[in-house]
Amino acid sequence: MDLKKIYLSENDIPRQWYNLAADFKNPPPPPLGPDGKPVSPDMLAPVFPMNLIEQEVSQKRWIDIPEEIIEILYRWRPAPLRRAVYLENFLKTPAKIYYKDESTSPPGSHKPNTAVPQAWYNKQFGIKNLTTETGAGQWGSAIAFACKLVGLNCKVFMVRISFDQKPMRKAMMKVWGAECIPSPSKETNAGREVLKKMPDTPGSLGIAISEAIEAAVTDKSGQTRYSLGSVLNHVLLHQTIIGLEAKKQLKSVGEKLPDIVIGCAGGGSNFAGLSFPFVNDKINGAKMTIIPVEPKACPTMTRGPLTYDFGDIACMTPLIAMHTLGHSFVPKPIHAGGLRYHGMAPLVSHAIKEGLLEPRAYDQLQCYESALIWAGTEGAICAPETSHAIACVIEEAKKAKEEGKEKVILFNYSGHGLMDLTGYEKYLAGELKDYPLPEKELQESLKSLKDLPKL
Amino acid sequence: MDLKKIYLSENDIPRQWYNLAADFKNPPPPPLGPDGKPVSPDMLAPVFPMNLIEQEVSQKRWIDIPEEIIEILYRWRPAPLRRAVYLENFLKTPAKIYYKDESTSPPGSHKPNTAVPQAWYNKQFGIKNLTTETGAGQWGSAIAFACKLVGLNCKVFMVRISFDQKPMRKAMMKVWGAECIPSPSKETNAGREVLKKMPDTPGSLGIAISEAIEAAVTDKSGQTRYSLGSVLNHVLLHQTIIGLEAKKQLKSVGEKLPDIVIGCAGGGSNFAGLSFPFVNDKINGAKMTIIPVEPKACPTMTRGPLTYDFGDIACMTPLIAMHTLGHSFVPKPIHAGGLRYHGMAPLVSHAIKEGLLEPRAYDQLQCYESALIWAGTEGAICAPETSHAIACVIEEAKKAKEEGKEKVILFNYSGHGLMDLTGYEKYLAGELKDYPLPEKELQESLKSLKDLPKL
Repeated sequence: MDLKKIYLSENDIPRQWYNLAADFKNPPPPPLGPDGKPVSPDMLAPVFPMNLIEQEVSQKRWIDIPEEIIEILYRWRPAPLRRAVYLENFLKTPAKIYYKDESTSPPGSHKPNTAVPQAWYNKQFGIKNLTTETGAGQWGSAIAFACKLVGLNCKVFMVRISFDQKPMRKAMMKVWGAECIPSPSKETNAGREVLKKMPDTPGSLGIAISEAIEAAVTDKSGQTRYSLGSVLNHVLLHQTIIGLEAKKQLKSVGEKLPDIVIGCAGGGSNFAGLSFPFVNDKINGAKMTIIPVEPKACPTMTRGPLTYDFGDIACMTPLIAMHTLGHSFVPKPIHAGGLRYHGMAPLVSHAIKEGLLEPRAYDQLQCYESALIWAGTEGAICAPETSHAIACVIEEAKKAKEEGKEKVILFNYSGHGLMDLTGYEKYLAGELKDYPLPEKELQESLKSLKDLPKL
Repeated sequence: MDLKKIYLSENDIPRQWYNLAADFKNPPPPPLGPDGKPVSPDMLAPVFPMNLIEQEVSQKRWIDIPEEIIEILYRWRPAPLRRAVYLENFLKTPAKIYYKDESTSPPGSHKPNTAVPQAWYNKQFGIKNLTTETGAGQWGSAIAFACKLVGLNCKVFMVRISFDQKPMRKAMMKVWGAECIPSPSKETNAGREVLKKMPDTPGSLGIAISEAIEAAVTDKSGQTRYSLGSVLNHVLLHQTIIGLEAKKQLKSVGEKLPDIVIGCAGGGSNFAGLSFPFVNDKINGAKMTIIPVEPKACPTMTRGPLTYDFGDIACMTPLIAMHTLGHSFVPKPIHAGGLRYHGMAPLVSHAIKEGLLEPRAYDQLQCYESALIWAGTEGAICAPETSHAIACVIEEAKKAKEEGKEKVILFNYSGHGLMDLTGYEKYLAGELKDYPLPEKELQESLKSLKDLPKL
């Protein structure tokens, strides 16, 4: 009988994270400050603790995971690697489909893989309070969870419209002791300014980021820092535990390297977490197709140029070299909120440039259709973000059937969809649609890149 | 290092269910029909398929699990046995706390353990459609899931107030292809009658049961049956896979029998599923404290007499011998909806009479407090029903500390609370309260038992 759930023992949990930055043939361009010069670690010190900044700029290939962090991660890690035999049978494909099940963490996604180390390093550095922003609430609940277990206070600025529409995510954060406030709020200058001009605004991730950073850097006690859930190098680093575990698990059932590695990509962290350890093999000569999947409504990698841009709409971050649709691009309201980001992690963007990745984009309806096939075969209800990876998996499995090849496909099951059932309900009621890319708005948004430094 | 997650390999999944009915020193009293005589299997044939009726009345100790059912259960079984080391450390208890994690099934609870075999046996018997009722939606989503995987049509009558207040559970059922309609509905005589008298009624489980049974027995094709999620012997039988797995898992880490076994009990199925294989050891002389836990607001086992009563408010079921508060007793609106049942499974009730179990009752606020301790230590958010078991676990772990004894405690983590966050939010906002048992209403309800047959 085939093994459907492949576990690792606790002793086999990886003891080091893998840093892809150490292995590029050409180094990625550095982030730039307002003066157009590379950002120095000191400039980031009011925002992040120095131990995380060191990871952010590190060129070391392997970075030790402190035992205390592993002790916390044990609550749900090592995460199972599973084989989707029921989907394989349904598709009648010769492909073997493996997936790393990151939905088993208490907050329900891969996000705690970095939330826990971030909270722990802040605590080590003497920090007492973390601030962050959250859109749909996936990241906010992960950082609330991590702060509770590590012992930090946590304040989450949640985009007001989500705060009102997703009360359950808010409740999750409260269960783990976090303070969750709707953004814009009266607690920050940034929030008050916006409220003065637009008292009825639904808020935006851009405003929430501004508020969270301001709340961190203006705390005179010096004991507050800010935390980000994707995009940055150290976030991707922490997520590589996913791919490192998957490698051991595949080996334990006699598989060599997969032929195809797939993950959805919004900011890039779950995709990078699974794929970077395999990108390493590809750099060293292995043949593999590695696919980051994005929504056609927000086609950062497949349509956006690789250039310097701001990470946020308010232009508060350093300039980072990435695939971007322009920081003023506002994606249409697809339900995969975690994939509605104008940019892409610099390390993922650079790996695309180096020819290591083959990005692909899918429309929302095909993704929901794939999610329903998944629920009807494997049984579980996936997050709308994860459904993008599944759409690609199904396409590749069908291709393997046409070609008659027994390919090994590995993908990241980044989260469950139990907090996202509204989208499913609307899909089943025929109320969802695909959004053609608004070419005019995209060109408008790309214009804003012209005055920024070039690569 | 201690093992925190104890897995079984697929080959170690139990191949037989355990039937406690075979091992009682004194046999439990039979269900009675309207004529006061024991119900014959034939009388149940319009409601259930004969293969399940055979299980319902079986006296065989071990009943084979068909390989096709195991193949479906593999999606989430064997379920992990976990050790709550973080809670142990927090409580500074010498007790070792193990829990069977039944929250890992796609619908999020132990319910699919019986939903899958019920759907499968119906299909084997040539049935095409299943009907059932659901209150909060836990059972409805489990049977929708099972019907999807087995290939049956599924119609769920959902109590109207829950239908309106819990749209996410409804959405889950739809994802798995079930039809979910608010009860009372216009589809049945029972529903139409109620709507005529009370067009604005919020509905009740009693009405929904009546509708689901009527929809099954009046289908002239003969291809429709009814399905129940707890109380009945065959339901408890299917759940014993929980305890049988737990036994193997405890043994695999060198533990003998636990000192204390705990589970929450509404209809009794998750409690019986974990405990009955251990009750077997107790019958054979082992020393063990086995505790079914109920809410003080619905103290069926601790306050209700053991006598014949109807299983439903509408008096449509056979008379069953059980602990009961009277079929007209309506519990106060505690959030643990799955524990708001006036009766208790006949097999659990009989085991209490035989001195094998020691029921205990807890108030809602203590249970939520325990749930928050759990979320802050083990990390996960439990179902409000499960929090009753945890309240008892914490009490027993503290007692072990006082006594300085290294007791082994085993409990059933019957489900997660991700669909029940409203209750947590209300608790954190200070809006929940305890309900003293309404003595007058209880006495009134118990009066209705006087005219029924006696044990």
